[in-house]
Amino acid sequence: MESIISQSYEVHFGELAKAALKQHIAKSGYSKVFVLVDENTKKYCLPFFKKEIMAHPIDSVFEIASGEENKNISTCTKVWEMLSNFDGDRKSLLINLGGGVLTDLGGFVASTFKRGIDFINIPTTLLSIVDASVGGKTGVDLGVLKNQIGVINQPVMVLVFTEFLKTLEPRQRVSGYAEMLKHGLISDMEYWNQLKETSSFTEPDSIQKSIAIKNKVVLQDPTEKGLRKILNFGHTLGHAIESYCLENPEKKTLLHGEAIAVGMILEGYLSHELKGLSKLSLDEIKTTFLQYFEAVHFSDDDVDAILKLLKFDKKNTHGDVNFVLLQSIGEAVSDIKVPEELFQKAFAYYRE
Amino acid sequence: MESIISQSYEVHFGELAKAALKQHIAKSGYSKVFVLVDENTKKYCLPFFKKEIMAHPIDSVFEIASGEENKNISTCTKVWEMLSNFDGDRKSLLINLGGGVLTDLGGFVASTFKRGIDFINIPTTLLSIVDASVGGKTGVDLGVLKNQIGVINQPVMVLVFTEFLKTLEPRQRVSGYAEMLKHGLISDMEYWNQLKETSSFTEPDSIQKSIAIKNKVVLQDPTEKGLRKILNFGHTLGHAIESYCLENPEKKTLLHGEAIAVGMILEGYLSHELKGLSKLSLDEIKTTFLQYFEAVHFSDDDVDAILKLLKFDKKNTHGDVNFVLLQSIGEAVSDIKVPEELFQKAFAYYRE
Repeated sequence: MESIISQSYEVHFGELAKAALKQHIAKSGYSKVFVLVDENTKKYCLPFFKKEIMAHPIDSVFEIASGEENKNISTCTKVWEMLSNFDGDRKSLLINLGGGVLTDLGGFVASTFKRGIDFINIPTTLLSIVDASVGGKTGVDLGVLKNQIGVINQPVMVLVFTEFLKTLEPRQRVSGYAEMLKHGLISDMEYWNQLKETSSFTEPDSIQKSIAIKNKVVLQDPTEKGLRKILNFGHTLGHAIESYCLENPEKKTLLHGEAIAVGMILEGYLSHELKGLSKLSLDEIKTTFLQYFEAVHFSDDDVDAILKLLKFDKKNTHGDVNFVLLQSIGEAVSDIKVPEELFQKAFAYYRE
Repeated sequence: MESIISQSYEVHFGELAKAALKQHIAKSGYSKVFVLVDENTKKYCLPFFKKEIMAHPIDSVFEIASGEENKNISTCTKVWEMLSNFDGDRKSLLINLGGGVLTDLGGFVASTFKRGIDFINIPTTLLSIVDASVGGKTGVDLGVLKNQIGVINQPVMVLVFTEFLKTLEPRQRVSGYAEMLKHGLISDMEYWNQLKETSSFTEPDSIQKSIAIKNKVVLQDPTEKGLRKILNFGHTLGHAIESYCLENPEKKTLLHGEAIAVGMILEGYLSHELKGLSKLSLDEIKTTFLQYFEAVHFSDDDVDAILKLLKFDKKNTHGDVNFVLLQSIGEAVSDIKVPEELFQKAFAYYRE
């Protein structure tokens, strides 16, 4: 599998990844090598990592609690303290072995420990492989507000091992599929067409293609001033829905992919209303997502609360809410302002 | 007063600073302008800032508690939350009006809020003017360990108004003088000779020269891989002393300049033992600092505890303690390993 060259680093797959890791550690002369895991990756991924991937001795394994609810500054403080207590210095390496929550948090902790140490990401969920492998975003949540605190910083390398996907529950696997479908929707109709029919989205080829699409977008706009915004398709409403469900004890917590699957149907509707996305394509989007993602029930009160949360989304500047919308499948435009009354109509279409 | 061109920004003085601020804000189209103060700068500097410096309206003033003991993640969280609650977005500006604790912390908060917003530093103490104006260091402490958490990031500009120095207590003013003397010791004998005799270290010319010396060093080594380390002269032992006194309720808390003044005498002694600094120069260094900075009493237990803290200093890699030492006044060398038995002798010389 061909490696993907991103900003200052490469994404390697399988055997090549193993070799790249070995070679890098041998030449870097790190003072300490630390591995960050959560209770799940400690159980399901660390044994394989130690046995099959990592040839170099590990100084310490740090464990944090899994889940978006632990992606906060208090967990960062624990990891900073562990790094400090185990004599981490500026020449230490942190290997983040886990899903998106862990790689986002571990990347932020490494980027800010002693003003920045090296880190390597080994994403273990489909979502983190296709979404967090490129882009350089690190960070944590502030209360219910997602990714409010963070920096843009690049890992030394990203290593992808599809073996880890076998350890996931089906719901977790499908969550990542939503981001892959998004990559098709925003910039590659052919990929969308292949992917929406397939049950083989965990195949290395499909995964590599998805990362390559995202990487192409990121490389053209590393600081998110323009083009890169299209990666937020489905995320403006999706994030608000995700935050709302996380914060509300009566709602079932949605996985990120599940929330943005809803977000893409809603923003697909806005695209149809405002940007000429055909009714046929809109229905195709809705049918595809509802085939893989169970419909979520939203009451009128839920919808009102979600729309209130919108204004906190970090992409909004000057109080306006900006959307990425589709002109057609494979073609996205960003910075579109949406009249408020359309939000209710979008939810009505979702509930139809 | 001539502006100093640093990494990606300039340091402006007095009237020029006022004009630069006005012009920058006019052309930048910020959504919000926030000012960060502590209880001291709110009382002594904010009125002057509003009346004489800042022409643009301020959206909100955020207040934090002053002092090294508040330079931590918990204070950062309060400021992140204020930024969030007052609708700060990616196009917001944070102006840090205060001493080094405030500009370090405010710079870190801005650099990590929504993955980085613009910030302007207006240092109000002599120490922060001569030390924190250039270098791009931001950060906070982790427990007693100074600056363990942070990033390297540049402000939009730094503005220096010597009017603020009049609001300082003499002890605070003298604290900054230690860093100015250090700039002479590490790279400019002539400046050292002028400065050590003078009582006019708060003159704009002396201040501008001190920033210019530091800037020259920083520009040659922005990521602290080599030359820049010389700026740490006096800081390896100085930081350990500062941490120890902060953490120990029985010791008087030392200002940063007071701690590194001791550190420079101690490391001057090490320089004499290991790098050929003459006894005459060593005594000149000791006499100069003791003239301005009251001698600190250290018991044998104090010394032992301080030496234990040394190993946590963030500049140490691979467990060794590296020092910057002087070959002569105006000429520093870095990465010098010091045999442990010399530390006790250095304290003995200080106590003589």
